[in-house]
Amino acid sequence: MFKINENYLKLQGSYLFSTVAQKVAAYKAENPGREVISLGIGDVTQPLAPAIIDSLHKAVSEMGVKETFRGYSPDLGYEFLRSTIAQHDFKERGADIDIDEIFISDGAKSDSGNIQEIFGTDNKVAVCDPVYPVYVDSNVMAGRTGTFNKERGIFNGVIYMPCTPENNFVPDIPEETPDLIYICNPNNPTGTTINKEQLQKWVDYANKVGAVIIYDAAYEAFITEDDVPHTIYECEGAKTCAIELKSYSKKAGFTGTRLGYSVVPKDLKCGDVSLNTLWARRHGTKFNGAPYIQQRAGEAVYTPEAEAQIKEQIGYYLRNAKTILDGLHAAGYKAYGGISSPYVWLQTPDHMTSWDFFDLLLTRANVVGTPGSGFGPHGEGFFRLTAFGTYENTVEAVKRIASL
Amino acid sequence: MFKINENYLKLQGSYLFSTVAQKVAAYKAENPGREVISLGIGDVTQPLAPAIIDSLHKAVSEMGVKETFRGYSPDLGYEFLRSTIAQHDFKERGADIDIDEIFISDGAKSDSGNIQEIFGTDNKVAVCDPVYPVYVDSNVMAGRTGTFNKERGIFNGVIYMPCTPENNFVPDIPEETPDLIYICNPNNPTGTTINKEQLQKWVDYANKVGAVIIYDAAYEAFITEDDVPHTIYECEGAKTCAIELKSYSKKAGFTGTRLGYSVVPKDLKCGDVSLNTLWARRHGTKFNGAPYIQQRAGEAVYTPEAEAQIKEQIGYYLRNAKTILDGLHAAGYKAYGGISSPYVWLQTPDHMTSWDFFDLLLTRANVVGTPGSGFGPHGEGFFRLTAFGTYENTVEAVKRIASL
Repeated sequence: MFKINENYLKLQGSYLFSTVAQKVAAYKAENPGREVISLGIGDVTQPLAPAIIDSLHKAVSEMGVKETFRGYSPDLGYEFLRSTIAQHDFKERGADIDIDEIFISDGAKSDSGNIQEIFGTDNKVAVCDPVYPVYVDSNVMAGRTGTFNKERGIFNGVIYMPCTPENNFVPDIPEETPDLIYICNPNNPTGTTINKEQLQKWVDYANKVGAVIIYDAAYEAFITEDDVPHTIYECEGAKTCAIELKSYSKKAGFTGTRLGYSVVPKDLKCGDVSLNTLWARRHGTKFNGAPYIQQRAGEAVYTPEAEAQIKEQIGYYLRNAKTILDGLHAAGYKAYGGISSPYVWLQTPDHMTSWDFFDLLLTRANVVGTPGSGFGPHGEGFFRLTAFGTYENTVEAVKRIASL
Repeated sequence: MFKINENYLKLQGSYLFSTVAQKVAAYKAENPGREVISLGIGDVTQPLAPAIIDSLHKAVSEMGVKETFRGYSPDLGYEFLRSTIAQHDFKERGADIDIDEIFISDGAKSDSGNIQEIFGTDNKVAVCDPVYPVYVDSNVMAGRTGTFNKERGIFNGVIYMPCTPENNFVPDIPEETPDLIYICNPNNPTGTTINKEQLQKWVDYANKVGAVIIYDAAYEAFITEDDVPHTIYECEGAKTCAIELKSYSKKAGFTGTRLGYSVVPKDLKCGDVSLNTLWARRHGTKFNGAPYIQQRAGEAVYTPEAEAQIKEQIGYYLRNAKTILDGLHAAGYKAYGGISSPYVWLQTPDHMTSWDFFDLLLTRANVVGTPGSGFGPHGEGFFRLTAFGTYENTVEAVKRIASL
C-alpha cells in the first residue's frame, strides 16, 4: 500500500487569503449594497506596459511562423534574457554575476518553494516573524521542521526571528545557529527594508557560520531609499553565501504573466559541491524552461521605453502607499513600511487582535486588509494594507479608516 | 554549516541529450561540409496553429487594457480551461472527471517531476525499462531510491519492468509489489502502446495491491489505434488508483509555450487523506498558476478550427513516423512503435551497442538519433528515431540509413 508524504499533514488548515476571501464573500452576501474596497491581496492591477505588450505580440507572431518558431527553451533560459539581466540587474550595480549563475523560471513563488530541495533535510531553517508563508510551508512539506505548536503558533524546529517596531523590523542574529536563512528585502508583509550595512552584517555572519541566505528581492523595483541594496551581491562576500530570487511580478505587473529568476553563484559551495550545479540539475530534471514568449517580454522590461512606463506604474503604487502611510499617521495610527514597498504595516489600535481589527475594518469601514497574525505570531496586533488598488479607492479607504 | 541534499550526488553525470549534442557538435566541427539530419530530440518543429496564434494575440491584448488585465490566476487554473478539458478530454470519452480534479500547470515535465512529492519517501517505485529519465531521477532526488548500480545500469531499490519485443513492450506485473507505478502510454521512448484491456489489468492490479499508477499520457494526441485508451479513466476503477498527466507540448506544439495539466481524482485516497487535497496544497504553496495567456491558448486548442489545424500537424508527424517505420522494415531492420507515436524504436543490427550504432549512423549516414541504452539497460541494443523533422529530411535520412 502506498504511503503519503506525512509532512503535509503538519501544515495548518486553511490558507490566510482563502479565509479572508470567505469572510469578505459572506459579508458582501449579507450586505449587498455596500461598496467594499480591497487593499488585501498583493496583486497588481495596472495593465502591462505598452512596450511589454508589443514584445509579447512580436514573440507570439514568431511562434506562428516556421522560420522563427521556438520549441523547448534552454533549461536555464535563453541567453538573450540572461545576458540582459546580468548586465542591468548586476553589472550596472557593481555586482559581478555571470550569466551561468542566472536561472530563468516561471516566477519567484516557484523558486522560493523549490530552492530548499537542493538542501538536506537536516538543515536548520531561520525565518523572519512575520513571514511570507511559502518559506516555512515548503520546508514543512520537505520534512525540515517538526510539528506545529498550536499554542505558540509556530513550527517546532524552525528559528523564528522577530521583526517588530523595537528592532525596526530588522531581524537580530538568532541565538541558535541556522543553516538556511530566509530574508525578504523589501520585506513582505511589513513593507520595511534592511539597508546595505545591516545586510552586510548578515552576509558576514552567514559566511562565518557556513549558512546560506535565501534572499528574496521580489519587491526590489519599489526601492526608493538610497541605502537599500538592489541585490545582495552589492554586499562583499555574498557570492559565497547567498542565493537571490527575483521576480517580474511586482516589477512589471507579471503576476498573471509569470516570469522570474534565481541567482546561484558558482562560488557557493558545500565542500566540493557547487549549489549552482545542483540547482541546474533540478532545473534540467523537474522544469522545462520558461515560455519563449514570456522570456522576450522579460527582455523588453529593460528597454528604455518599458523602463519609463514601468517607472510610472510603480510610481502610481508608491503614491498609493504614501497615501495610506500618511493617512494612517495623521489618524494617529502607528504604521510602517510603504516607502520602498507596496505594503503598509499598521499596529492595531487598543491592542486589538489582527482578526478583530479585520472584522472591524470590514464591517465598519468596508475595507479589506490582511491580518498580521496570518504571517506569524509576531504579526499579531498588526495588519497589512496594500497599495495595489486604484488611487481613488485608496484615498477613499484611508478616509474611511481615519473616520472610524 | 549547511548540508546539501546528498541524494543529488547519486544521479549519473551527464544527461543523455547533452552527450548526443556534444558528439554531434564535434563531428560537425571536424566535417564542416556534411549535412547532418537530426531525428534525435523529441521536440516539435511545426509552428503553432493559426487559431492558437489568434488566441494568444487576443489574450496578450487583454493584458494591456485595465478592464481585461489579469493578475494571479487561480492556483489550479482558470475555470474556462478546466471545464473545457473536463468536457472534451474526459466526459466525451466516457470518463467522469470533475473540474476540481484537474490542475493546470506549466507542462507535463514539471508535473511528472513534482508529483512524487506528495508521497512518502518509503514508497517502492516501479518504472518501465527503457524509461523517460525524469520519473527515476526525480525519485532519486527525493531519496526514494538507493545508489546507482554501475554494473547493472540501474538504481538500487527501484523496480525496473523490462519492455522488450518479447512482451510487445507491455510491462509484466513485477514479482516485487510496487507502491508507485509509472506508465507512459503511448510510450516514450519505444513509441509502442498498451491497449485498454492491458491497461485495465494494471488498474485492477493497482487497486488490488494499493498502488498508485502515475499515467503519463503526453503523447495521447498521436493515438491512431482504436483499442488504445486516450485516458486511463476509460478503465474501470482508475479513479481510485491513478493520476494522469497530460501535455499540450506534443498535442499542439507547445514545447516552448508551456502548458499541461494533471488529474488527481478525489477518490484516490490513503486512508482518509485524499491525494487531490495534497496536490492542491502543493500547487497553492509552490506554484503560482500557469500564465493567463497560455491558458487561453489551451482553451483554443479545443475549438473546431484549431482541432482541424492540429490534426493536420499531427498527421504530418505521423506520416514521418510511417516513413521511418516502413523504410526501416524494407531495409531489413526490426523496428517498433511509430503507429500511435512520433517515435520509432529500432533494434540495432548485428547486436551492436546503442552507442556504436549512434556513431555509425552519425559518421556514415550523417543522421542523429538517440541511443536506447540512455533510457535504461533494456534499451541497450535499441535506438530511437523521432518523427519531428521535416518530411523531406525524414525521407532523406531513411534513404541514407537503408543504404548503409
